[in-house]
Parts: sequence; C-alpha cells; structure tokens
Amino acid sequence: MPEFIVTPWEVRGKIDYDKLIRDFGVKQINRELLEKLREFSGDLHLFLRRNLFFAHRDLDKILNDYENGKEFFLYTGRGPSGHTHIGHLVPWIFTKWLQDVFNVDLYFQITDDEKYLVKRKNFDEIQGYVKDNLLDIIAVGFDPDKTYIIINTRHISYLYKIAVEIAKRITFSTAKAVFGFEDSSNIGIIFFPALQAAPCFLPCYLKGKKINCLIPAAIDQDPYWRGVAREIAIKLGMPKPAQIHSKFIPGLGKHGKMSSSEPETCIFTTDGEEDVKRKIWNAFTGGASTVKEQREKGGRPEICMVYQYLFYLFEEDDRKIEEIKQKCKNGEILCGECKEYLAKKVVRFLKEHQKRREKAKDKIEDYMIDKIKTAL
Amino acid sequence: MPEFIVTPWEVRGKIDYDKLIRDFGVKQINRELLEKLREFSGDLHLFLRRNLFFAHRDLDKILNDYENGKEFFLYTGRGPSGHTHIGHLVPWIFTKWLQDVFNVDLYFQITDDEKYLVKRKNFDEIQGYVKDNLLDIIAVGFDPDKTYIIINTRHISYLYKIAVEIAKRITFSTAKAVFGFEDSSNIGIIFFPALQAAPCFLPCYLKGKKINCLIPAAIDQDPYWRGVAREIAIKLGMPKPAQIHSKFIPGLGKHGKMSSSEPETCIFTTDGEEDVKRKIWNAFTGGASTVKEQREKGGRPEICMVYQYLFYLFEEDDRKIEEIKQKCKNGEILCGECKEYLAKKVVRFLKEHQKRREKAKDKIEDYMIDKIKTAL
Repeated sequence: MPEFIVTPWEVRGKIDYDKLIRDFGVKQINRELLEKLREFSGDLHLFLRRNLFFAHRDLDKILNDYENGKEFFLYTGRGPSGHTHIGHLVPWIFTKWLQDVFNVDLYFQITDDEKYLVKRKNFDEIQGYVKDNLLDIIAVGFDPDKTYIIINTRHISYLYKIAVEIAKRITFSTAKAVFGFEDSSNIGIIFFPALQAAPCFLPCYLKGKKINCLIPAAIDQDPYWRGVAREIAIKLGMPKPAQIHSKFIPGLGKHGKMSSSEPETCIFTTDGEEDVKRKIWNAFTGGASTVKEQREKGGRPEICMVYQYLFYLFEEDDRKIEEIKQKCKNGEILCGECKEYLAKKVVRFLKEHQKRREKAKDKIEDYMIDKIKTAL
Repeated sequence: MPEFIVTPWEVRGKIDYDKLIRDFGVKQINRELLEKLREFSGDLHLFLRRNLFFAHRDLDKILNDYENGKEFFLYTGRGPSGHTHIGHLVPWIFTKWLQDVFNVDLYFQITDDEKYLVKRKNFDEIQGYVKDNLLDIIAVGFDPDKTYIIINTRHISYLYKIAVEIAKRITFSTAKAVFGFEDSSNIGIIFFPALQAAPCFLPCYLKGKKINCLIPAAIDQDPYWRGVAREIAIKLGMPKPAQIHSKFIPGLGKHGKMSSSEPETCIFTTDGEEDVKRKIWNAFTGGASTVKEQREKGGRPEICMVYQYLFYLFEEDDRKIEEIKQKCKNGEILCGECKEYLAKKVVRFLKEHQKRREKAKDKIEDYMIDKIKTAL
C-alpha cells in the first residue's frame, strides 16, 4: 500500500507534496517565480505566500510571454455534485486574484455531464447543484465582462466540435492508463476527458489565434492536463496549457481533504454561525489531553486543523500566524482560544460571501458563455 | 470464414437474407403486414413490392398504435464520408414515401462527427460532404414543414443531454460487444452510439410525451437499435424504436454493396449521361460469353446487376420486369439491350434529381432542426 494516493478520482492518505512534485513531474513555485509574480501584482496573494499554490507547469513561460505582450486566459471549473464548501472556493478565489492582476479572460467549466455520469444521482439533482454552485462562483467576484461560464449540457455547442477533434486523437488505451477507466466504465465518462480538455483551446477557436491558457486547480486534476490536454495541444498545433497547482484544504477531522461526504468536517458556504462554531469546536487539533499537560508541554500546530485553516486561509498577518504557532508550542494558548479566533474569522468571511451570494441570483446570465453568440 | 458478414462497419460476401433474419432476430415483412401497409397507402411502394425493404422490428406494433390514434415519427440518417450514390437514396426515397403516406415528422441525422472520427479525413473535407449530401437529401422531396435535419456537430445542443442519459447506461463492454470497439478505438467513436440513439427519443423530450419511432435503414445498422437504442428505451421508460430494414443495393461490379470506394461500380447523383452509360456498359451481367451462346442458352438474370437495378429500382411495371426476366432466360434479348434500357431510365431519373438538387441550394435552412428554437 502506498502511503498516499492522488488521482482525479481519489485523494487519500497523508500527502507528501515534495514526492508528488517528483512523481507528477511538475515544478515547484520557487522564490524567483514568486518575485516575478510580485512584479505584476505588487503584493503576493496569501495562497502564494503560504505555499498553498505550490507547483506549476509552464507558469514561467506564460509570464515571460505575457511580458512580451502575448496574452493568456484562465480556465478552471467545478464538478457540481454537492454543495460548495470552503475547500472549493480556494482555487476560485485565487483565480479571481489572477484575473484582477493580469486583467484576463476566464473560462469556467461546470461539468454537470461528468457528475451525472459518475454519481448515483439523477439529472435534476445535478442541475440543483449547478444552480447552487453558480451562486458561489459568482459571489467570488469575477469580472462579468471577462468571465465565461460553460455549463456543459447547456453550452455543449461551444465545446463539442473541439472535443471531437481532441477525441479522435485519444485511444481508449490512453484514457484507461490516465484515468483508470475499466470495461465497466460507461461510454459517456470515457468521452469526457475530451470535453474537459476542450476549453483549453476554445478561445483560440473563437478568436482564430493562438492564446496561452493557464489553469489554476488542485493538483489531483494534473493527469487531465499532463495526459491529455498537453499531448493533444501538440497534435492540434495549439499552445500547451500551463497549470498552477494547489494543495488540498484538509477537512476539520483527522484525515483527508475536505469532502462533502463528511459534512461535519467541512464548512459549507451556506453554513450559519452556529454550524461554523460547532464544526470548528469539534475540529481535530494538536492539543494535549489535559489543560495542565498543554500548559506544560505545549500543543502541536503542525497536526492541528485549526492552525492549518488559519495558516492557509484565514490569518493574513504573517507575524500574527507566527505568534500563534509559537504561543501554541509554548503552551501559552489553549485550543479553545484558537477555535474561537478561527470561528470569528470564518463567520465574518461567510457573512460577506453570503451577501454576495444573495446578490448573485440576479447576475447569473451575465456570466454565461452564450452572451457570446458565435457557437462553433 | 463465414460466407458473408454484415455489421455496421463491414458488409461483405454473398448475403443470405433469410439467414440474416434468423441471426439478427428480426421479422420478415410478410403478406399480412404488406396488406396492412396497403390499407394506409393505397398502393405499395416498389421497394415493398420487390421485397427490398424486407424485414422489421415492431412495425406491426407501430401500425396498430397508429390505427388507434397514436402518432409516430420517422428517423433516418447519413454518414457524410463521400458523394451520394443511388444506393444512399434508397432508404431516403422510401422514408419520403412513408412520410407522405402517414403524414409524419422526420428527424434526419447527419453524422459528420462519426465520419470525422473514423475516416482519415480532416474536418473541412467532411463538411464538404455534408453540404454536398444535404442537396441530395433535400432533393428527395421531404416535407420541409415536417422534416428536421440534425447535423451532429452543428446541432449537438439538441442531442447531447439525451446522449448523456443514454451513455450513462452503456458500458464499454457492451459497446465493444455490439460494435467491435477495441482498446485502440478513439474515445469519440466509443461515445458515438449514444449520439446515434439520441434522436430515437428526441421528439419525446421536445414534446414532453411518449411518441413511437420508426427507423427505415439498411439492415447493417440493426445492431445500433437492437444493442443500444431498444435496450436503453426500457431503462429510460421510452417507447422502443421500431425498424424497417432494407437489403443492400449491390454495386454494378461482381461483388458487394454499392461503395464509393469503387466509383466505377456505383452511380453518383451528380453523374452525367456519359458516366451513367459507361458504368452501366461495364456492369457485371448474367450474359453468356458469346452472342450465339446467349441466343441458344439464354442469360442468368439472377446474377445480373443490370437486372437487379431494374428489378429493385428502375422498372416499376411488374409485368415488364417479368417479361425482361423471361426474355433474358430465353435468349430473346441481349445484355446490350438491357443496358441501354436501364441507362435511359437512370439518366431520366438523375436529370430530374439533379434539377431538384439545384433547387435545394436555396432551401437548406428550411430543413434544419434549429428552426425549432427550443434547445434541450
């Protein structure tokens, strides 16, 4: 048994991200690249400072090209199989930051077809999640003039022709090796990788020129780009899509990434104050078993979910997060204090998000790709 | 080696249609069913009288339902991988007859995606054939108010959602067994059976009620309906599509069905008078090797392509065709006479077709499914 598994359909175990970088053949986001990003943005986003977005493919190339006047666009997505939790927001928040810094277009794919094909859910259930998730996506604050949301079953006319060109160049053998398909896989999900790759090239088709593509996403999606989109780009004479990869936001429990299947370990965007407090109160921490012991020996922030959430997501202040860490180790603060501190921050964040989420209800159509009238 | 092979991707050898009926588990169109058809139509179409459309699934059920006021629609199609020849026109001409007799809607699928996926042709070449074939389809004379042409890559928004519902219910194993896919098959063609099945249910989705479907097509397409569409219908709670199957129109050469890959053995819809005369002059006949021998021993209409063309397609008069057969057997007419007779009929037919084909150029959009504005 390997210690951890990271594939597009399974993430399990204690992930060694350095090993993942070597195994996947991606590059670390090093100091030089961070400096380059800072040149464009002024300040680095928290997710870069804290190494949550930690690896990439060809990001350096994209930035060099951009300096030389060559535009790029962003592409990310969402598989609508449940309600949105904070873990889902991470790549979207970062994508919005990139959109603001570089003033670029974003293509956002909602893979309702994929989720219908692989989940024991009917089509209407999936459409319910599409509507729900759309509100969260829009609440993140993307620029409506530069954002094109593609709901696969609704906007298939923008993708299908490109997907067919891609599909002609992928055998079942390849798809099996990359995605673990089996003879019992349904023929819809077997075709799906072509549809997930299609937006990498869509702006090139729409505008009739080669445009670079940058994909911010969690690293489990890497096989799609490595095994399909980048290979196909060469065959189609298109630019290879670049990636910027994030780590996974852990659940509040002891193990694994945040998952809707364990609702008490993840914070949903529609959670109320009491939900947040309860879930954080029950979070797994690095505290000792008694107050006395913790005062004497200190806690272990490196295994504490409350600390992880502050570090990666909610404590912007670099000095403050360092202070929390030291105080915890020295037994100067107890878990209860940290939990209250995090809960306050999360509640504040969610209240703002929920206001924007409410306003999003009137704006959905402004973001849909069919505002462009040219179907392919 | 089997004596003959009939699959959606290969038709070879001397076909024993009685064996095919048993192997495929279809039913013969018997006298009773012909009488039933005559009740609706007054006269039976040549293709029924001469047993060119010879087998069916559930046609009796469709007709009973129709008598009881339950409507049906027709569905047929074309894979645009080359120019149209007379063999292609056969199911279309028969479909038009059915449309006229029963006054029903026709959905006509042009599978440009499929042909792109399986042929060594680029996308633009296939689109060239789409344009070309459309003229022939329209020239057949379908009712524009009741005919909906679907070009897959252009009108995918009408099909994709249904195709995904179908695809979820077909494993790669099943598709492999029915269509002979292999690990080296591309993932586009593996998905394709779901798209070919989708129009069977499209009117049900568009109109929100169960409507019977009747598919006139050559019998090599049967596995699509038997192995996929009819099975899926049960799972989707939709009516099982019915079929009416034709034999293959042979090429003018000694073997096989009419095929664009042997252009001298098939008559294209754009062929001129000289082409027709030359091709028919070179046709394989049942004549003897010398005039003297033929006068003495007679010819063999049962193996003669010129006779086949007259019998199945061009000699409407039942007495006349019987007379030709007898005179041939008795050595009273020679192959040259029959060839001239057939050529005249074919040239006359093509001249009319070509006039309508020319007029079709201004009517294409009247037939496209997007005249219905409701995409699914």
